[in-house]
This record gives sequence, structure tokens and C-alpha cells, in this order.
Amino acid sequence: MIIVMKPSASPEQINHVIEKVKEIGLTPQVSRGVERTVIGVIGQESKLTVKPLEAFPGVEHVVPIQKPYKLASREFKKEDTVVDLGDGVKIGGNEFIVAAGPCSVEGEEMLIEVAHKVKAAGAKLLRGGAFKPRTSPYSFQGLGVDGLKHLRKAADETGMKVVTEIMDTRQIDDHLEYSDMLQVGARNMQNFDLLKVVGDSKKPVLLKRGLSSTMQELYLSAEYILSRGNFKVVLCERGIRTFETETRNTYDLNAIPATKKLTHLPIIGDPSHATGNLAYVPAMAKATIAAGADGLILEVHPNPEEAWSDGPQSLTPKMFEDLMKELRVVAKACGREL
Amino acid sequence: MIIVMKPSASPEQINHVIEKVKEIGLTPQVSRGVERTVIGVIGQESKLTVKPLEAFPGVEHVVPIQKPYKLASREFKKEDTVVDLGDGVKIGGNEFIVAAGPCSVEGEEMLIEVAHKVKAAGAKLLRGGAFKPRTSPYSFQGLGVDGLKHLRKAADETGMKVVTEIMDTRQIDDHLEYSDMLQVGARNMQNFDLLKVVGDSKKPVLLKRGLSSTMQELYLSAEYILSRGNFKVVLCERGIRTFETETRNTYDLNAIPATKKLTHLPIIGDPSHATGNLAYVPAMAKATIAAGADGLILEVHPNPEEAWSDGPQSLTPKMFEDLMKELRVVAKACGREL
Amino acid sequence: MIIVMKPSASPEQINHVIEKVKEIGLTPQVSRGVERTVIGVIGQESKLTVKPLEAFPGVEHVVPIQKPYKLASREFKKEDTVVDLGDGVKIGGNEFIVAAGPCSVEGEEMLIEVAHKVKAAGAKLLRGGAFKPRTSPYSFQGLGVDGLKHLRKAADETGMKVVTEIMDTRQIDDHLEYSDMLQVGARNMQNFDLLKVVGDSKKPVLLKRGLSSTMQELYLSAEYILSRGNFKVVLCERGIRTFETETRNTYDLNAIPATKKLTHLPIIGDPSHATGNLAYVPAMAKATIAAGADGLILEVHPNPEEAWSDGPQSLTPKMFEDLMKELRVVAKACGREL
Amino acid sequence: MIIVMKPSASPEQINHVIEKVKEIGLTPQVSRGVERTVIGVIGQESKLTVKPLEAFPGVEHVVPIQKPYKLASREFKKEDTVVDLGDGVKIGGNEFIVAAGPCSVEGEEMLIEVAHKVKAAGAKLLRGGAFKPRTSPYSFQGLGVDGLKHLRKAADETGMKVVTEIMDTRQIDDHLEYSDMLQVGARNMQNFDLLKVVGDSKKPVLLKRGLSSTMQELYLSAEYILSRGNFKVVLCERGIRTFETETRNTYDLNAIPATKKLTHLPIIGDPSHATGNLAYVPAMAKATIAAGADGLILEVHPNPEEAWSDGPQSLTPKMFEDLMKELRVVAKACGREL
Repeated sequence: MIIVMKPSASPEQINHVIEKVKEIGLTPQVSRGVERTVIGVIGQESKLTVKPLEAFPGVEHVVPIQKPYKLASREFKKEDTVVDLGDGVKIGGNEFIVAAGPCSVEGEEMLIEVAHKVKAAGAKLLRGGAFKPRTSPYSFQGLGVDGLKHLRKAADETGMKVVTEIMDTRQIDDHLEYSDMLQVGARNMQNFDLLKVVGDSKKPVLLKRGLSSTMQELYLSAEYILSRGNFKVVLCERGIRTFETETRNTYDLNAIPATKKLTHLPIIGDPSHATGNLAYVPAMAKATIAAGADGLILEVHPNPEEAWSDGPQSLTPKMFEDLMKELRVVAKACGREL
Repeated sequence: MIIVMKPSASPEQINHVIEKVKEIGLTPQVSRGVERTVIGVIGQESKLTVKPLEAFPGVEHVVPIQKPYKLASREFKKEDTVVDLGDGVKIGGNEFIVAAGPCSVEGEEMLIEVAHKVKAAGAKLLRGGAFKPRTSPYSFQGLGVDGLKHLRKAADETGMKVVTEIMDTRQIDDHLEYSDMLQVGARNMQNFDLLKVVGDSKKPVLLKRGLSSTMQELYLSAEYILSRGNFKVVLCERGIRTFETETRNTYDLNAIPATKKLTHLPIIGDPSHATGNLAYVPAMAKATIAAGADGLILEVHPNPEEAWSDGPQSLTPKMFEDLMKELRVVAKACGREL
Repeated sequence: MIIVMKPSASPEQINHVIEKVKEIGLTPQVSRGVERTVIGVIGQESKLTVKPLEAFPGVEHVVPIQKPYKLASREFKKEDTVVDLGDGVKIGGNEFIVAAGPCSVEGEEMLIEVAHKVKAAGAKLLRGGAFKPRTSPYSFQGLGVDGLKHLRKAADETGMKVVTEIMDTRQIDDHLEYSDMLQVGARNMQNFDLLKVVGDSKKPVLLKRGLSSTMQELYLSAEYILSRGNFKVVLCERGIRTFETETRNTYDLNAIPATKKLTHLPIIGDPSHATGNLAYVPAMAKATIAAGADGLILEVHPNPEEAWSDGPQSLTPKMFEDLMKELRVVAKACGREL
Repeated sequence: MIIVMKPSASPEQINHVIEKVKEIGLTPQVSRGVERTVIGVIGQESKLTVKPLEAFPGVEHVVPIQKPYKLASREFKKEDTVVDLGDGVKIGGNEFIVAAGPCSVEGEEMLIEVAHKVKAAGAKLLRGGAFKPRTSPYSFQGLGVDGLKHLRKAADETGMKVVTEIMDTRQIDDHLEYSDMLQVGARNMQNFDLLKVVGDSKKPVLLKRGLSSTMQELYLSAEYILSRGNFKVVLCERGIRTFETETRNTYDLNAIPATKKLTHLPIIGDPSHATGNLAYVPAMAKATIAAGADGLILEVHPNPEEAWSDGPQSLTPKMFEDLMKELRVVAKACGREL
């Protein structure tokens, strides 16, 4: 941590800061420059976070040097984490994994139909919302536990794994019964009570980046889960909020190589939600592989114009099948199996 | 709702859309222009939201005309809503209301001390976090229910009302016992299960705008609460995420007149969290009044350099007292009591 | 400047950086911490900017400590700069200054009519675009030099000063002949050749913040002008790009107290362009005063529905007159004359 | 164009708008809905842009239906534009084109050395800044015309084409003499006088997206050039401003498929400037190809730690050579030659 003093800071103010640093058991190292004094702090920075150093008189600002996340960092764990969902489905290894399915679970029959088709085309996980986070209270809110049951049945019939969103801490028991992977959605990325519950569950988690979250905040939310002893965390880039309106959000593929450099966690991409536009999904899905991601989560609906949510960005099963063929070629060129 | 067809849309595609609109019981009105056909839809748009019209072949995009929020809109209710917290504390009337207190509840004694001082200076509500949403799992997470009890005691001793954050649906009973106003924080603005629980509680709610939420999304989150029959909702602007780094967030005062125009709900401002910098709080507090807000929520700590969270943006009780005097003059110039 | 080395940096890499720092004539101060080594650099940082330190092997990142702008900084000049336009019109002193007029100059007669009205209501500067930066090549591009002449005539007839935009270096001579204050628009804030020409001219300059410019970048653009020996620079906040769509841009009033703290330059606000919505102009104009600005620039058009540009945000002369009365009350409450 | 009237609009206000629409020679089509009246306008919308319809009493807002750019649109020209730089160098065809070179031209010898190396590795264009847009007036501003001469010489010796930035209208003659392709930088994307001069020149243009420009604004800036009769325009995505700080800007690859859908112009990517971080360039370069771009522009410097600008994001010639091999494999998988 670097404490930058104001040019006008008095010797008393500087000493006051130095004393506080020592008091906590850290070592201050003082550089008196031309314009201002800078105090480097040696030792575990986290000891200092409880003290709001910027509130000290004479302090201009404080620059953290150490990363605030530990367990998620590449420095903590050099080798890539591989999250094992069982039955050979692993995210983060050499195999590139695709999750596919409708935005919302609308019924058992439709789900089983989609599941068979996406499985045949190469998807390993079945996705679909049972509990739906909807901006408007007047939008379809999901089938709830019935939706979870449909997902379980469709997955069991097809030999797939279920990934589906948990929205509230009170839903945990149902999810533990029916889901294979708990999705924490973008709007809940900083629902810290939910992160704790999901961490304690020890189930595999798919943690989506919030719409206005920095990558560092995403890693800190992962840290909430990891620090509960649950290392089965897969991150997901799903677009951030910017001024651009041609796409629903700005799908930030830079998060892929950044996450690979800064953390050991697997990361997948969600171009369906991020772009909100079917026309851009194939190109951005290919780019996701080329950027180095470990997988994709894609919306597939048998009849997008009848979908109860997110129709405009859903692929039909036929389009998904064609896309998977293209993705396979790109994956191979990038040294990944699919 | 306006359905804009692609220039290349075939007559069959256009007819297909027209048929679907009629099927739902709405009236299509077709304009065949030079370049493309546009279909206006007359009737309750909400009937159409279940159909993802943009997924229909030949449709370029769909422009909603009606606002998606109803109960929150100025059109639904012409007169300003005034939220009554009891004992003469009302938000949204002619009186400009100030809530003040520390970021986190750190102990009973300190809280009572602060409460006395901010009360004396003119604050009507006592603020303070018992449950703290912290980006890092290693930061202080709040005193929990003990914090709520301290708040209740300090408020009772000083004749103030308590506003404090609820972070999870499971905390509702404790909040109902100890708080006067339930704060839904920026990170939970789209925690829809929490909004439902808070709506059902019928308690006054302070709903903070999310860091990347549009004003319309804020109103839709309010709509979740209103549609549960709880009209005691006060909105709060607390800064949005932008590229600017000199302030912690960008305090978006434009939300004040916009909310006054578009809704009937009271709105207050939180310059402490928004700017994250003590130096900017007084100027932005004055600007908040001038922009037409109904109140302010300010961080006040007896000893900011010992604060367990957010020290750099906390006023001392003396600074708060001085600021209140200045605010009173500006409020008067703007026709508001304080 | 603080050079943060990677945890994996070798002793050779650390020494290599130390040697480079010394070579340039600066003093390195090395802190060997638990995780990584940090090298503080004492001396004029600007000597180092020519060396891309982050490209050195073993360097993780570099944290500048000194502000990159000098002449614009409050540290360089403690007292507020007052820009004198002559005939008693001064920006940055106790008087709050208002510039008013149409978005575009559309003709001499209309301009003289508006000038008389805004002058009578209290405006000191006449604004109006002769050269118009328009997003589309098919939009009205301004009357050019004829527009400048109309502005000069209207200002002379009414005893006002002219502020108008210069878009290209080749226009400087015409502006020197007809304008009193050269406006550099948001889109040209980083047109560095234009900044140099405007700096060399020694004329008063109104420098508008770019739509995606940080405050620091605004100050650096001012620095281009100041470093040419022209200290007659007034800054202008006119909204930044965010995801919000209810307002055209997000009028960032935080820039007012920030600029007052960080620089000695006057700053005014432009709520007309920033909000793009007439309904929000009065509230935000009042907030601009309360935030501590030195003036306002407002769009006034005798007949907004016939305006050739920006009608929706233009006040009528009558609305302007009424607003000025309100602004006067707020200004007084804030200790400013108007 | 759709004109949405306020719910409170009077019959007179509605008729007033209808009359104005007819006056201009367009056909209004009125839909009287449950809540409000909507007026569709049939005919060339551009006729209406001169009238600020939102300033009319009773009008709530106006929704444009037609795209504001014509010549740049895919509807205007179905087939892809291929920009021919001569000697077989074509951008927009099946061949994927790479431009490479240092950020700044620092001297003739160094440039020739780099040119030979990047040419050998497969680059067709030599890039390098002679006129440098620098945020600070104290940063290196480029060698100017000498830089252009060095570029010409290095390109001629190696059989490459020169692409370099023009910053000001007064530089056009020198550029016409020495450059093969005129780069308009991100900060000048809306320097409309420069766009006009560059359009009139009839030279190939590389137009970079501004840091806060929407895609539509980028196409409108292209329209400035096209409408001057210069169709040799190549667009370039180089990152937008967001809240994320791990990357310098957010490289928005979504712009690639969007541009391919909405326009007929070629588009290339600049991951060096966009990410500002060498570590992310290879992954994002591969993703650029996979997203469907027509080329890349990459920074290559023989000794990044001695670079006069942008060292941290520059590849060494060896890294560039290795990257080109990887890119070739991805290009092939995507059906492109490299």
C-alpha cells in the first residue's frame, strides 16, 4: 500500500500516519520527494483496510498494491482450476464445454425436446430458467420449483447436467435437490448473502459478471464463495453496460484473457444475453473460443417467436447444430476439443 | 408499440405479424412507407410482452410506446406521494428531510453520541449499517441484529427514525422489529425476491438506484414494491458507474428532476456514497436541494479516521452542523423548509 | 511515481529498473515487501514519461503520484483565475455569469431579437453557433463567417460579448475578427492542433469537456492552452456519455467542486446540451449554481419549434426571463451576485 | 419516423403536428390508442430533421425509423466494399490484412528495421505515427513531416503501404505526398472539417471509432467521407470508454459483426491500443479474426522498453512473428487467407 500525502501535509500529519502504520504492526517506508511525501507500507495490507487512511488529515490518496482477492488469484494457485460436474463433464480442462437450452423453462415436453436436440449437437449442460429475474414485475417470473423438476427430468433423460439460476437464499434446498450447477445471475453478483449460501453448499457454481462490475469485483464475489471452502467456481462474461445501443450490452471479451492471467478459475461466455441479438451470436461465439474461454452458454428455443422470454436472441435447434459445426473448427484451430 | 419491419420483409412476413397482433386482441395499424412497413399496435402493450416480436421473421425491431411502469408513473397518480414515517417525519412534502449517521454501526455508545449531535443539527432520521454489503469477504460485514438493536435504542433516545439496509429476505423479521424504514441498497436494487418481501411488509422503503441502473429500471424496481400494495416508497440517487475516476461514482443529479417529472415518488440524494470524497459532499448536498430533491442521506462519523468503513467520505458532527446551516439557506431559496 | 514489480520479478529485473531510474537522474527508493518489491521514484516524474516503464521485464504496473497537469493545477496557482472579457464582463469572480442565445445562428434579425431579450433578462454573453459540429453530414452545418458577422452585430447592438465555437484551425482569423471568446466544443476537446492555435491566439477560451473525457483529461487539454501562454481559459461541463437514456448525456455536476479543488480555472455549466431536455434545464441550472459554478450557458430560441437545431432543449425568451429570476434567488443564497 | 404524443396532448396540438408534417410534403398516419396518439410519418425522414419535432407542444418524443446514414448502409450497397491500396493490397476481400509498426516514428533506421521484420512475417501495411495526438502537451508530439518521409522510405524499401494519422486539415498536402492511407484517429472521429478534407482527397481512409462513439456515430462519420465521393473507407474498432480499469479501454468486438450487418464497409481491429496491455493482444487478435474482421493493426517495436510512446502494449518483432503463425491457423479455420 502506498500512502500519498498532500503537498501541504505538515510534518505532524506525516508522523501521525507513520505512527498508525507502526501501531498496526506494519513497516512504513518514507520517501520525501520534491513535491510530496509518499509512505510505502510493507506487510499484509489487509490489516490496514479497517482504517480509512484517506480520512487522515494530510493524506491525499491511498494506492493499494496487493490485489484484494487472494484465493481466486493466479498467484495463489498456478494451475488452472477444473470444475468437475460428474459423469465426465469438466469445465476448465482442454475440452470446450457448451451449455444450451431455452431462456425460461416453459414446460416439460418442450424442454425434453430441446434437450435431445442440443445434446445431439454436442451440448453437455442443459440451461433454462426456473426462477427468472425480470426487470418488470409484470413479466413472466418463471415456473419455480416445477421448472427445476422439468430440468432434472430432461437432463436425466438425455444424460446432461443442469445449470440454472438461484435467485434467493430461501431457494437453496430445492436447488440442491434438482440442479447440478447453481447459477448466480448478473443482478445477484453482489448479493453477498446468496454468495455465502452458495459457497456453503459446496455445489458447482456459475457466477455471472454483473452489468456494471469490474473484473476485480467479479473475482471478489468469487472470493466470497471460495473463502467458504467451495472452489468449484466457473465465471461467466455476459456483457457490461455502456453507452452503445446497437447491442443490448457490450460483450466484453477482454475479460477472457484477463481472467486467465489474473485468476486460476475457468471462464465461459454468454453471447446470447450479452448481445441480445441473434444475428451477432455466431460471430461472437466463435470469438469467445478464440479469446481463450472454456465454454459457452447459449440460448436455444424450438420456436423463438413463441418464447416466453428472450426470443430475439435464441437460436433454433437447427441453427445451434450448424453453429456447433463451425465452433468445432475454430476450437480445433485454437487447440481445444469440442 | 411500433413494429418496424425490415426493408426486405415479405408480404407473408408482414401478414404473419398482423395476424399475431390480432390474435392477442390488439389492433394493428399498418403504414407502408418508402423503405419499410411499420405496424402500430393499439391496445394494452403488456399483452404483447409475452411474445418476443423481434424473433418474428421480417421484424427489424420493436419500439415500445407505453412506459413499462404504471403504478410508479406520474400519469397514474398526479399528486406527489408523501411517505409518512410517523411522529411528524414525512418525506416528499414541503419539508426537506435529512438522514444522518455513520456508514456502519460500530457500537451503541458511539451511535447514541452521533444521534444526539445530528438530531441537534436538524436530522430527522438516523442512518447506519447493521448488515453491510461489502465488495470483499474480508471486509467488516456489520454487527447484524445487534446493530439493529443499537440503532433502535439510539433513535428512541433521541426521538429519531431508523433507516437501515436489509440485505436478504431472511432478515425481514428483525427489520420489522427494529427499523422504521427498510433500505434496499444499490447492489440489491434488482434482487427481486427482496423487493417482493419488502413490498409485502408494507413498511416504508428507501430504494437506492443501482450503480448501472437506468432511471426506468429504478422505477420498475419500485413497481415491484408498489404492485404488492406498498406505496411507501422513497427513491434515492447514489451515483452511477462511469469512466470518471476522480469521484467514486458519478452522482447523477439529473435523476432528481427526471423522477419528479416521470413519477410521483419522493426522491432523496446520497452524495457521500456517490462522490466517495468528503471534499465534494457540501457542494453536491446543496446542489441536491437546488435540483429539487426531497431530502439527503449523509454519512457522519465522530472520528472518520477510526471509522470501520467509508471514513474518507464521512463528515464530522461539527462539519455536519455547519453544512446544515448552509443547506437551510439554500432550501429556503428553493422554497423548502429545513 | 511508484513502480510495482511482479511477485515473480528477478533481482536482475529489479536492478535493471533501478539502473534506468538513476540513469535519468532520478532517485529510486526500494521497498522489498512480503509479496513484491516496490520502487518509489523521487524527482520530476515527467523525466520518466518518455520511458515506458510498464514495458520493462518484471514490472507489473506503474502508479503516477504527481498530477500530469501543472499550470492548470491549484497547486501551481492558489487564487482563482478570473477571465476578463472586457467591459466589465468577468468569469470566475463573485459575479455569476450567464451566456444565452440560440443553438445555431439562423439569421441576423432573429439573433438581434434574442440578444435584446436575453440581455434584458441578465445575460452578459451572447452564444450561437456559426460553425456547427453535426453528427450527420446531412444536418445544417451553420452559416459560417456570415454567422460570425451576425453575432458580432447583435452583440454590439446590445452591449454583449460573443462566445462561439471554432471547429478548425483554418477558421482562426475569422474568429479573431468577430468573436470575444473562442469555444472549443466537446468533440474537439482533444483536437490538439486546434488547442495549440487557440492557445497561441491569446483570446479567452471556453473549453468544453468531451463526452467521454475524464476531468483530468479536460485539465490536460486546458494545459495545452495554458502552456502556450494563454491563461484566459474557462472550463465547461456539458455532460458525459453513460448508459442512461432518459437524458441525452449525464450532466456531471461533480465536475464543478472537483475543478474548484484541483484547478484554479473558472468553470461553467451547460445543462441545455447535457440534458437535451427543456424540462430538466431549470432544475439543473439551479443545481449548477448551488454546486459552485461560475456561470451557465443556456439555449434560448424565440420559437423552439422552428429552430434549425436543438429545439427540444431551448428555452423561450419568456422562460429564460422567469428562470433568471429564480436563479438570482439561488445565487444570492449561495453568496453569488447575478 | 414515429411521433409519440403525450397522453395529455390536446386535439389542437395533434392537428398542429399533422399539419406541419403535411406542409413538408410527408404523409402522416394517425393511430389513436388507449393512452396516447401516435403519428407515423411516411416519406423521407430527412426532410423532417430540420424541424425539431420534440419542441412542438404536446409531443412526448420522436422515434426515428430510418437509419440516418445512407451511403454507408448495407441497404444502399449489398456487396462488401473492398478498398484497394494498390500493388495487390486490398482490405475487405477474402484476404485478412495486417498493418504493423511502432506507435510513433522515432527515426528512419529503426523504422526500416521494423518494416523488414513485419513484412517478412506477413504484414502488408506499415503503421507509425508522425503526428501524435497526445493527451498531455508535455508528451512527445511526433516527428511531423520528417516522420512521414521516414515512413515513405521504409515502405518503399520493403514494398509495403503506409497508413498514418492525419490530425489537422492543414496537414493534408504532406499526407497526400507521403501516405497511402490516411488514418483519422479516435479523438478526431468527429472532427468534421477533417472528415470533409479527407473525403475530398479521395485517398483511402482508415477511420477509427471514437472512445465514446456509438457504432451509428461511426457510420455517420464515415458518411461524411462517402458523401464527398470517397468510398475508400475502412473502419477500425479500437476500444470504448467504460468503467473497467483492467484494460485501458474496452475493446468492443461486437462492433465487428454489427458493422458487417449494418454497413458494407471493411472493418479491422486494433487490440494494441484498445487493451493497452501486451498480455491481452494475442488472444484478442485471434478473437478479432473469429469475429469476422477484415484485418488487424498491431504495434510492433524492436525494443518496447525504449519506445517513445505506448511501449507496454507493443509486441517485439519476434512476438509478432509467432503471433502471425497462430493467426494464420485461426484465419484458415474461419475461411480467410492470411
